[in-house]
Amino acid sequence: MNSTPLTAIAKRHGPRYNADLALWSQLEEATMTQRAYNFSPGPAVLPEPVLAEVQRDMLALPTAKASILEISHRSKTFKEILAAAEANLRQLLSIPDNYVVLFLQGGSRLQFSMVPMNLLEAGHTSADYLLTGSWSKHAWKEAQKAGDMRVAWDGADGNYTHLPAAAELKVDPRAAYLHYTSNETIHGVQFATEPAVGHVPLVCDASSDFLYKPLPIERYGLIYACAQKNSGPAGVTVVILRKDLLQRSRDDLPSYLNYRIHADEGSLMNTAPTFAIYVVRLVTDWLLNEIGGLEKMHARNESKAKMLYEVIDASDGFYTGHAQADGRSLMNVVFRLPSEGLTKKFVSEAEQQDLTELGGHRSVGGIRASIYNAMPVAGVEALRDFMIRFRDENAS
Amino acid sequence: MNSTPLTAIAKRHGPRYNADLALWSQLEEATMTQRAYNFSPGPAVLPEPVLAEVQRDMLALPTAKASILEISHRSKTFKEILAAAEANLRQLLSIPDNYVVLFLQGGSRLQFSMVPMNLLEAGHTSADYLLTGSWSKHAWKEAQKAGDMRVAWDGADGNYTHLPAAAELKVDPRAAYLHYTSNETIHGVQFATEPAVGHVPLVCDASSDFLYKPLPIERYGLIYACAQKNSGPAGVTVVILRKDLLQRSRDDLPSYLNYRIHADEGSLMNTAPTFAIYVVRLVTDWLLNEIGGLEKMHARNESKAKMLYEVIDASDGFYTGHAQADGRSLMNVVFRLPSEGLTKKFVSEAEQQDLTELGGHRSVGGIRASIYNAMPVAGVEALRDFMIRFRDENAS
Repeated sequence: MNSTPLTAIAKRHGPRYNADLALWSQLEEATMTQRAYNFSPGPAVLPEPVLAEVQRDMLALPTAKASILEISHRSKTFKEILAAAEANLRQLLSIPDNYVVLFLQGGSRLQFSMVPMNLLEAGHTSADYLLTGSWSKHAWKEAQKAGDMRVAWDGADGNYTHLPAAAELKVDPRAAYLHYTSNETIHGVQFATEPAVGHVPLVCDASSDFLYKPLPIERYGLIYACAQKNSGPAGVTVVILRKDLLQRSRDDLPSYLNYRIHADEGSLMNTAPTFAIYVVRLVTDWLLNEIGGLEKMHARNESKAKMLYEVIDASDGFYTGHAQADGRSLMNVVFRLPSEGLTKKFVSEAEQQDLTELGGHRSVGGIRASIYNAMPVAGVEALRDFMIRFRDENAS
Repeated sequence: MNSTPLTAIAKRHGPRYNADLALWSQLEEATMTQRAYNFSPGPAVLPEPVLAEVQRDMLALPTAKASILEISHRSKTFKEILAAAEANLRQLLSIPDNYVVLFLQGGSRLQFSMVPMNLLEAGHTSADYLLTGSWSKHAWKEAQKAGDMRVAWDGADGNYTHLPAAAELKVDPRAAYLHYTSNETIHGVQFATEPAVGHVPLVCDASSDFLYKPLPIERYGLIYACAQKNSGPAGVTVVILRKDLLQRSRDDLPSYLNYRIHADEGSLMNTAPTFAIYVVRLVTDWLLNEIGGLEKMHARNESKAKMLYEVIDASDGFYTGHAQADGRSLMNVVFRLPSEGLTKKFVSEAEQQDLTELGGHRSVGGIRASIYNAMPVAGVEALRDFMIRFRDENAS
C-alpha cells in the first residue's frame, strides 16, 4: 500500500524517532504485507498512518512517560489530546461557537434513547422520524419508550431503496425535533442534502457517514455519530449540539444520559474513553494534514464510489444496485448478483485476493462494499477490477 | 524494567514473529527507558507484556489481516476475543454458571443508574447503601433519581477513615439490594471481606480493586468494575450478575440500560468497545499465565502494600496514613506529610526520579500511591526507597 506514515510521524515527534526510523521502516514493510483491503461496514478500515502512530507510541507517549492506555483522563497530556480532537472537528466542519462537541460512550444505541429523553419538553411532547432503512427504524422504535414518535415518512413500500422527495415531507411544526439517518449502512441509501424542516430542530444520526464531506452545521440542532466508521475505533460517539437545546435536559435524568451535564463537564463527567478519543484526534489530524480537509475528502469519496457504481451500471444486469440512483450511498455500495451461488462465489474469490468483508447484511443479502474515508483508492480499484473480471468469467 | 514480553508473545504467535524478533527487541529496549513508574489512580499502569502485544499486532491481528481497531464486533476473530475474555474471568474468579458476565460502556457512572433502574421492583422499592467514601456517596446520590435509597451506614463522622463493624450494620430485610464500594480510591479504605447482608442481594462497585484477589462470587448479586484500574483501559465496564436478578429488568427501560437485553445478546446488542475488551482479554491472559492466578496476585499485592505501610508506620509521624490500620487499601496507599510545602516537594522530587502521579485527590490532599496489579514490585521498591530517603533528608 502506498501511504508513508513514517515521514509524517517522524515530523511530528522530531528526534524521538530518528534513531529508530530504519528499524520501524523494516517492521512496517513486513506488517503491511499482512493487511487486506477490508470492506467491513464497521468497525472499519482506519488510515494506516494513524495505526502506525498508535503502534509506535503504545508503550510511551512522548510527553507522558506512559502509554495512552495508562494516563488519567484529567492529566495534562490527555486534556491536550481531548482539546485537539475537538479543535480538529471544529476546524474540519466549521462548527459555530454556539454548538458544543461531546465525546460519549454507549454508541448510537444510547443516543437513540438520549435524544428523546433530553429533547422532549413541555409543549413539544412528540417528535418526527423519517424511516429510510434499518437504522432509522431502530432509532424510532427505541425513542417510543420516551414519548410519542410520529412517522413523518416511511420508505417501507419501496423496500428502502429511495429517499423522500421534498414534496412528500410533512413535518409537524410542534415536533420537538425531526430525526433522520443521513446514511443507511445496510440499505446503502444516503441523503445528499439535509431535509427541509423549517424551525423544527433537525437531529441527524450521522454514524456511518460523519466527516465524509463538509456539513452546514447551522442547519442542525444535533448530530451524533459513533466513531467506528469514519472517525475512529468503536467506543466513542461524537455529539454536536446547539447550546440552546441544552436547556431542555431535565435534572432528573440519569447523569450519564444528560447532555447538559456532559457539556458542563467538557466530556469529563467521568473517565472518558481516552484511547478512542486519542484515535479520533489522530484520524482528524490525518483528514486535516494529509487529506487537506473535507472538500478534498468528499471529492475522493465521490470518485471512489463512482468507480463501483459504473461497473454495476455497465454490467448488463449482472450486478443490480439496491438503492435508486439519486439516493446511492458514497459509503456503502450495496448490490446483488444473479444468484445466491454466485454471491457466495464472489465473496469467497474476493477474499482469496485479500478483498475482505464483502458479504451483505443478512436482512438485505447480496454484496456490501463499505468504502469509508480511510479505504484507499487502490483498494477500490482492486475491487473494481475484480468485479469486472468476475462478471466476465461468470455472466452467462 | 524486568518483564520479558517478547518471549511470551513469540510463544503465542509462533513463526509470525520469529523473523522480526531481533528488531522488536531493540525497539522495545529503547522504549522501555522512556517509561516511568506510574502511580496514577486510573486509568492506570498496565502489564508491559500486554502493551507490547497490543503494539506488535496493531497493524494486523494474526488471523484478521486487519487491526483490532478495524474488525467487526460480529467477526469470528472478535467473537473469539470476547469469548476468551469471558472465559478468563470465569476461570480467574471461579464464576458459577448461574451468573452472566457483561462488557458494557458508560463506566461505573452509568452503573450508578443502571443498578437501581434494573434492580428495584414491586415489593422492593428501596435499597440500602453503605457510605464509606467519595465513590459510594456518588453512587448513592445518583441512585436517588430512581427511588428511595436508605443509608445503612455512613463513615462521614470519622472522615471516611474506617469501615463499619459487623455489629453496626443494620440492613433493611426488604431492601432490593445493598450497595457498597469494596475499595475507596480517594480515601484508601478497602473491605477485606464482604459485609454480611443475609438474603438481601449484595451489589458491589469493585471498580478500583477488581481482580486483586479471589472473590466468593456466590455471595454477590451483582459486581461491577470499570476496567481502567486492574483489568484494562478506560472504555469498558465488567458486570457480573446472578441470572435470577435479570427478571427484574423492565421492558420500558432504555435498551442500553437494560441488563436483560445485554445478557440475551451476549454483550453484542450494539457495537461493543472492541479494543478495550481485547485488552481485558490480554490482561486476564497475563494474570492466568504469567502471574499464575489471583491467589498469587493477592500475595504479591499484600507484599507490595506492606512495603509502603511499614515505611509510614516506622516514620515517627513524618508520614501519616489516612485509613485506620484494619481498613487500609492494598490498591491506594493514601498518606500525608507534615506540611503542604513538604507534600509539593515530595511529588516534585519523586517525579524527577520517574515516580509519577503521586499527588493525592484534591478532596483529601497529601499523597496517593496507587499500586494496582500491574505495578511491578520494582516500582514499589523504588517508591519505598525514595520515601525513606525523603524522610531522612526532611524530618526535623
